[in-house]
Amino acid sequence: MTETRTETDSFGPLEVPADKYWGAQTQRSVMNFPIGWERQPVALVRGLGVIKQACAEANKASGKLDGRLGDAIIEAASEVVAGKWDDHFPLVVWQTGSGTQSNMNANEVIANRAIEILGGVIGSKDPVHPNDHCNMGQSSNDTFPTAMHIAIATTARDVVLPGLEKLHAALKAKSDAWGEIIKIGRTHTMDATPLTLGQEFSGYAHQVALGIERVKGALPRIYLLAQGGTAVGTGLNTPTGWGEEVAGNIARITGLPFETAPNKFEALAAHDALVEMSGALKTVAASLYKIASDIRLLGSGPRCGLGELKLPENEPGSSIMPGKVNPTQVEALTQVCAHVMGNDAAVGFAGSQGQFELNVMKPMMAYNVLQSMQLLGDAASCFTDNCVAGIEPDEERIGRLMRESLMLVTALAPQIGYDNATKVAKTAHKNGTTLKEEAIALGFVDAETFEAVVRPEEMIGPK
Amino acid sequence: MTETRTETDSFGPLEVPADKYWGAQTQRSVMNFPIGWERQPVALVRGLGVIKQACAEANKASGKLDGRLGDAIIEAASEVVAGKWDDHFPLVVWQTGSGTQSNMNANEVIANRAIEILGGVIGSKDPVHPNDHCNMGQSSNDTFPTAMHIAIATTARDVVLPGLEKLHAALKAKSDAWGEIIKIGRTHTMDATPLTLGQEFSGYAHQVALGIERVKGALPRIYLLAQGGTAVGTGLNTPTGWGEEVAGNIARITGLPFETAPNKFEALAAHDALVEMSGALKTVAASLYKIASDIRLLGSGPRCGLGELKLPENEPGSSIMPGKVNPTQVEALTQVCAHVMGNDAAVGFAGSQGQFELNVMKPMMAYNVLQSMQLLGDAASCFTDNCVAGIEPDEERIGRLMRESLMLVTALAPQIGYDNATKVAKTAHKNGTTLKEEAIALGFVDAETFEAVVRPEEMIGPK
Amino acid sequence: MTETRTETDSFGPLEVPADKYWGAQTQRSVMNFPIGWERQPVALVRGLGVIKQACAEANKASGKLDGRLGDAIIEAASEVVAGKWDDHFPLVVWQTGSGTQSNMNANEVIANRAIEILGGVIGSKDPVHPNDHCNMGQSSNDTFPTAMHIAIATTARDVVLPGLEKLHAALKAKSDAWGEIIKIGRTHTMDATPLTLGQEFSGYAHQVALGIERVKGALPRIYLLAQGGTAVGTGLNTPTGWGEEVAGNIARITGLPFETAPNKFEALAAHDALVEMSGALKTVAASLYKIASDIRLLGSGPRCGLGELKLPENEPGSSIMPGKVNPTQVEALTQVCAHVMGNDAAVGFAGSQGQFELNVMKPMMAYNVLQSMQLLGDAASCFTDNCVAGIEPDEERIGRLMRESLMLVTALAPQIGYDNATKVAKTAHKNGTTLKEEAIALGFVDAETFEAVVRPEEMIGPK
Amino acid sequence: MTETRTETDSFGPLEVPADKYWGAQTQRSVMNFPIGWERQPVALVRGLGVIKQACAEANKASGKLDGRLGDAIIEAASEVVAGKWDDHFPLVVWQTGSGTQSNMNANEVIANRAIEILGGVIGSKDPVHPNDHCNMGQSSNDTFPTAMHIAIATTARDVVLPGLEKLHAALKAKSDAWGEIIKIGRTHTMDATPLTLGQEFSGYAHQVALGIERVKGALPRIYLLAQGGTAVGTGLNTPTGWGEEVAGNIARITGLPFETAPNKFEALAAHDALVEMSGALKTVAASLYKIASDIRLLGSGPRCGLGELKLPENEPGSSIMPGKVNPTQVEALTQVCAHVMGNDAAVGFAGSQGQFELNVMKPMMAYNVLQSMQLLGDAASCFTDNCVAGIEPDEERIGRLMRESLMLVTALAPQIGYDNATKVAKTAHKNGTTLKEEAIALGFVDAETFEAVVRPEEMIGPK
Repeated sequence: MTETRTETDSFGPLEVPADKYWGAQTQRSVMNFPIGWERQPVALVRGLGVIKQACAEANKASGKLDGRLGDAIIEAASEVVAGKWDDHFPLVVWQTGSGTQSNMNANEVIANRAIEILGGVIGSKDPVHPNDHCNMGQSSNDTFPTAMHIAIATTARDVVLPGLEKLHAALKAKSDAWGEIIKIGRTHTMDATPLTLGQEFSGYAHQVALGIERVKGALPRIYLLAQGGTAVGTGLNTPTGWGEEVAGNIARITGLPFETAPNKFEALAAHDALVEMSGALKTVAASLYKIASDIRLLGSGPRCGLGELKLPENEPGSSIMPGKVNPTQVEALTQVCAHVMGNDAAVGFAGSQGQFELNVMKPMMAYNVLQSMQLLGDAASCFTDNCVAGIEPDEERIGRLMRESLMLVTALAPQIGYDNATKVAKTAHKNGTTLKEEAIALGFVDAETFEAVVRPEEMIGPK
Repeated sequence: MTETRTETDSFGPLEVPADKYWGAQTQRSVMNFPIGWERQPVALVRGLGVIKQACAEANKASGKLDGRLGDAIIEAASEVVAGKWDDHFPLVVWQTGSGTQSNMNANEVIANRAIEILGGVIGSKDPVHPNDHCNMGQSSNDTFPTAMHIAIATTARDVVLPGLEKLHAALKAKSDAWGEIIKIGRTHTMDATPLTLGQEFSGYAHQVALGIERVKGALPRIYLLAQGGTAVGTGLNTPTGWGEEVAGNIARITGLPFETAPNKFEALAAHDALVEMSGALKTVAASLYKIASDIRLLGSGPRCGLGELKLPENEPGSSIMPGKVNPTQVEALTQVCAHVMGNDAAVGFAGSQGQFELNVMKPMMAYNVLQSMQLLGDAASCFTDNCVAGIEPDEERIGRLMRESLMLVTALAPQIGYDNATKVAKTAHKNGTTLKEEAIALGFVDAETFEAVVRPEEMIGPK
Repeated sequence: MTETRTETDSFGPLEVPADKYWGAQTQRSVMNFPIGWERQPVALVRGLGVIKQACAEANKASGKLDGRLGDAIIEAASEVVAGKWDDHFPLVVWQTGSGTQSNMNANEVIANRAIEILGGVIGSKDPVHPNDHCNMGQSSNDTFPTAMHIAIATTARDVVLPGLEKLHAALKAKSDAWGEIIKIGRTHTMDATPLTLGQEFSGYAHQVALGIERVKGALPRIYLLAQGGTAVGTGLNTPTGWGEEVAGNIARITGLPFETAPNKFEALAAHDALVEMSGALKTVAASLYKIASDIRLLGSGPRCGLGELKLPENEPGSSIMPGKVNPTQVEALTQVCAHVMGNDAAVGFAGSQGQFELNVMKPMMAYNVLQSMQLLGDAASCFTDNCVAGIEPDEERIGRLMRESLMLVTALAPQIGYDNATKVAKTAHKNGTTLKEEAIALGFVDAETFEAVVRPEEMIGPK
Repeated sequence: MTETRTETDSFGPLEVPADKYWGAQTQRSVMNFPIGWERQPVALVRGLGVIKQACAEANKASGKLDGRLGDAIIEAASEVVAGKWDDHFPLVVWQTGSGTQSNMNANEVIANRAIEILGGVIGSKDPVHPNDHCNMGQSSNDTFPTAMHIAIATTARDVVLPGLEKLHAALKAKSDAWGEIIKIGRTHTMDATPLTLGQEFSGYAHQVALGIERVKGALPRIYLLAQGGTAVGTGLNTPTGWGEEVAGNIARITGLPFETAPNKFEALAAHDALVEMSGALKTVAASLYKIASDIRLLGSGPRCGLGELKLPENEPGSSIMPGKVNPTQVEALTQVCAHVMGNDAAVGFAGSQGQFELNVMKPMMAYNVLQSMQLLGDAASCFTDNCVAGIEPDEERIGRLMRESLMLVTALAPQIGYDNATKVAKTAHKNGTTLKEEAIALGFVDAETFEAVVRPEEMIGPK
């Protein structure tokens, strides 16, 4: 049996685990929402810590909060920021849509920890009260969305962008290294005119580069914070300039360019900034899905597929087929991308469902966006390390396939016309012969001309 | 520092935690896929245990598997089924798309545990080999989808259907109890003709009843198992009748009517049965969203909303507004429903992405469907207990609103014609008067006729 | 300048085109909703005709509707059913969410046409009034969803199921014809153990067969009609038994087993039956996407792809590459499937958004479901005729690829153990040699044994 | 019977309607793709005209194209741009995924029209050949995506942004006009602290302002054109600098800042720019859904709803309930928004499905994005004109509801503490009394203090 202590809220007393700082409102949420297994993401919990620290600083500076209490709250909050009390945030995602109890969870943990620092009795709300002191000048309605934005911005900086940048660098390096390897192009999955393997990978690298731009392009609205709107956006119970000051503190603590949102009504009642970010992440997911799928098919084989690329072999691929090796990193990444698309659908839906002064899909929206971010960042990094970095081209096979292609005939078209060139290709296809044989046999060119015109190395750019 | 032991697979030796049964392939997956925080769902892990037990029984019965080894494997597998070794399954969702390493995780745990039972050295693969014995007659390609189906079917039985049935019973009880309470109907959110509160809730109850049918209607395809298809659906390395026998064993172990799939190529390469089930769950989510949203609006207030229902008050609703109470159970449920819609989009996408003999989005599809199921079942149950069961009508307010409505004029239309009835309603609306006053003033009816015709209690059914 | 006549509704007079039957409410909707280019689907318009005929029959039978008027309405409505007045239904999808003006469009067209039949003055509402006579016993709130269900059920019968059945038959015929062609299996897009081309196509055929079941499985709820619920589901202004009688008439007119919905509150306020059907269509889309994608890749080439199948060549494939031919039918079908998935997301969202006694996303939900149905039915049929029917295997290439595969080693595993078999495959892969050479060189088997055990024709089933 | 003439392509001769300019490849597509009812959007057709004109200008300038032929092509193409030949583009969306036949449709129409201008025989390909001259330097693979970008950019400028700007201006005007009207705030749909109606509408206006930014923010990638990549992105068969020159011509013709894409491989093989734009449109849809839903609920009634707003009455709202008027513009807009969300899911999926050098979901992606744009722009404009512009507040009701609210107690909390304020609110709620009565009765404040502190006009901002 766990030891407990008694905590109270306006609904009455409740027993909570004695070794945890949380209080009655947190406990009430644990009891009232036995739904699923998904907890509030850690990034969000720490974001709440950032806010509590930033607000206490402002409250202390203005003199509304006693200095001694303020210092204790700041210390306790900074411990939350540092991840010291992650285990004291037990709440699931599927709770009130304002995240009120998660805000109270932060207030309760910090209040009790501050009481402890000050030598008081945990659970006594004396000398630090979770609402009157830790939540001073705040409402869940502005605090929770602020925490959402902090969590998203830090995860963008710490997980998504590094993952994408690593992937971009690896693709770019391959593109640079393979600039001389001429290969068959494929459109509609059918043989087409040639390009270099470096060109092909330059397209992938460019997709990722644009993806980085897209994520960054969604951040300016994430950097706008709801804090200061309090209950409905008016800023009731805050002093003038409070939103600006707190945003400044948060920017200092996190090292990110947060500012106060110019319209707090929008910031509480809508989470369009999350919908927008999710759309950017979805776009990245579409890009990565395409890149990974191509790499999978180019590496298919080893004997009965396209076989142009040799992918790193990381683990046994089959419990029944000995020696089988599979493009497992591609599979992990594509599963992540498909999942991100689903998350995006959920976020868009939720974003549309605000009512009046509040959108009450907050925890679910935050969970989906943060999960998409974590997964994309992790998977991009993992895919780079365990797959892209180790890819090698099978130059022999690449060259052989390229030279057999009938689409080299395209180089002839400006010379003999589209209709005649079509005849050459179709005849060679029918007869299983070469373009050269049929171009000459049909009397359109002589051998010398053919050799001069149909040169793959001349077909990989304008001239 | 954790103590380790050495395990090996065809890629070489690896150190694994000494206090865990898993082996080299599991460890390799842990190392190669540091992506996200989502583990393989427990229901899936136990489903793998069911399979290993069922297959060992069949292999022992046919004499292909030595009886002593078979008994040890059966014992070890049954412990997995019972949940004894959940902690020995560390793999994340975002791994190879066939779930190969999760299948190997089961093989490795069961092999080592069986070795232990038989007094051997853990990690020695002697006398029990994870592939040759635990995976005998199996491939990840048939085992993992079989585990997916087992997990889904058991979660339907144990979580989704009980949750929905509980909710249905509660809504039905309210419908029965409130059959005499006549209230304003609302269409387009505008005042319409009356109905009883019981009738309104009968619609909700009926939606849930149909939802139960829908989930049940998707189960027959879930009961069809891939086991016996082995690597590509042909059943290579299995004896004739193996699929049927194993399905029979699984049915016996789980108490559910599993059968062998009639076409194993479909069963490995497509997971349409999961897409179908997800569609059913999405339909349930749409139903529950509607029901919950109505209850929220009918309970809005307490003074400035519709206020027809009084919802249970479960926790303080605001960290800044004293005394505020919110429809938090509605919010948890609606967040779940929106999330399920996103999961459904992901599952549909993934379901379309099979290639040739295998769909390699398996773990992600299973994760999404199982999460949707857990969340819907839990939330339906939670919503029932903490909200529906305690709802009370505000009869005074319901009656007052109903009697003020202009749409009672509809009862007059068959008597005085649609166009004249329109004049009555529009005039009353414009003048802020009653229908009766205007109907008489406009000369369409006398008071007696009005009283005889416009009777709410006569407007709640055909006659 | 178009000639006009004056029509009136309760908002006043309006000019309408003189050569059209529609009246003031239709015209008002034309003016008030200049949104997009999507008109109400024809199937829905005709479904409204069916209802108006069925209701007039019932009203005439009960004596509530004068026989002469009833006959004229029945005649006019049956002309709508026959498609004679499709051009008289100009309204777009994006109108009131109850479809009220589309219901009024039907009432107005039929009233004016009936007036014409009876020799009256079009626009006079004499002797046939659009509301009092054509809409007798009806509300848009029960009529429009009834029309939705009629349109969906008839489109299922006339478009979706025939398309899928045609595709199923063609895939089945290929499966039957190709039962002796042994080919390489591919899992994770990598070489795996062999199967027959017939087996591969049997999986596709089975997917489609299940898809047919899924669409049929969603029809029972589509066959339940809202008619009789009138404004809010109570059946106000209808006689007892009216819903049953009208449903019977509709069943007779359409030849489909329609019945009256057991709960009209659900039938007006939720369209879960459409969400469910959309989920079934989405599952079919996932199936067809997979089938089409496989056929595309198996037909890729002609020289640098997999090249196992030869797809029909239907049109020039490139405006720049002479002689190029592409799997265009695959592309049309896969685009349709992806679009259907989007429609499904929209339908699920919309289905969740009912309020109180009405869901006001009706026209949009109907449009999406009907579009999905039309596209899937048409595309399945088109894909069959222009692609599947004409596919031929390249047996020479199929045989060559299959014999080169290293995964034939799987047949050796039961004999020499998984670990040794792995060594054989890995060594052959590394050395570019054959399995047989390495199996012998490594001393695991002799040549005779190898030949006896590794026989592709024995690897395509249990034994 | 339609009169026909004979046209030919590399597959042979075909009869085409004599009164249309299109040729054999267009006709072949008509015959091969009898799928659905959705034609290529007009904006795309005209975009193709822009390209043909721009390319002919460049080809003529470089001397590769004979001046006389060039002039005729330029004239013919400019007629396509002007919309003169819209009816000569019969192809459906569901065709080859590269849009090849739509590109050929443009080539054929322009070639035949140019032949006509030059006095030749239509269908003779003399002196103007659809491939050799109209398609000179082009491939469908760069032309069609260029047309997609042109169509999207022009639709953004001409439809989406004007619609959103109109809506923004109307919401802003309401916000400015209603700055003094204090009303109840609602969070979780429950009574909360007050704000002004102007503040509430400022949130809506701000959402739309950000939506305009979001659409504009996605345009820079839309302004990058694939033209010049030809078949696979290499620019084969184009002169150096061609892409830049053509983009310049297109910019001049359209008046929009188009540039050549820096990486043509990305521009052909991925359409991430469309996925990104769709994400922005989806975000706008989420915003508009929220705004419209609020307006609907605030206007609900007239007697049994919230009734704070009076919405314009535009048409009769019910075929059975006389005098009923509904928020139909809200319903049209919300249906559009939900549809846009579905389109976005389809576009994201399709965007992920490119293979190698081409994404062959092009027509479907373009159709979905262009439809979303048309619908959002039209609906925003229609909603503004027919709803927002005419909304009036019911000031009497707004004031009454606000003064009854218990959440005015929040102003007391800083004075008497959160816990005591809670007691006041709860007691008043329980007793049906006023805050003032209970605050005094509980001994927390005197009447004077209460009056001084609880002043709604002081609660609408920081202080």
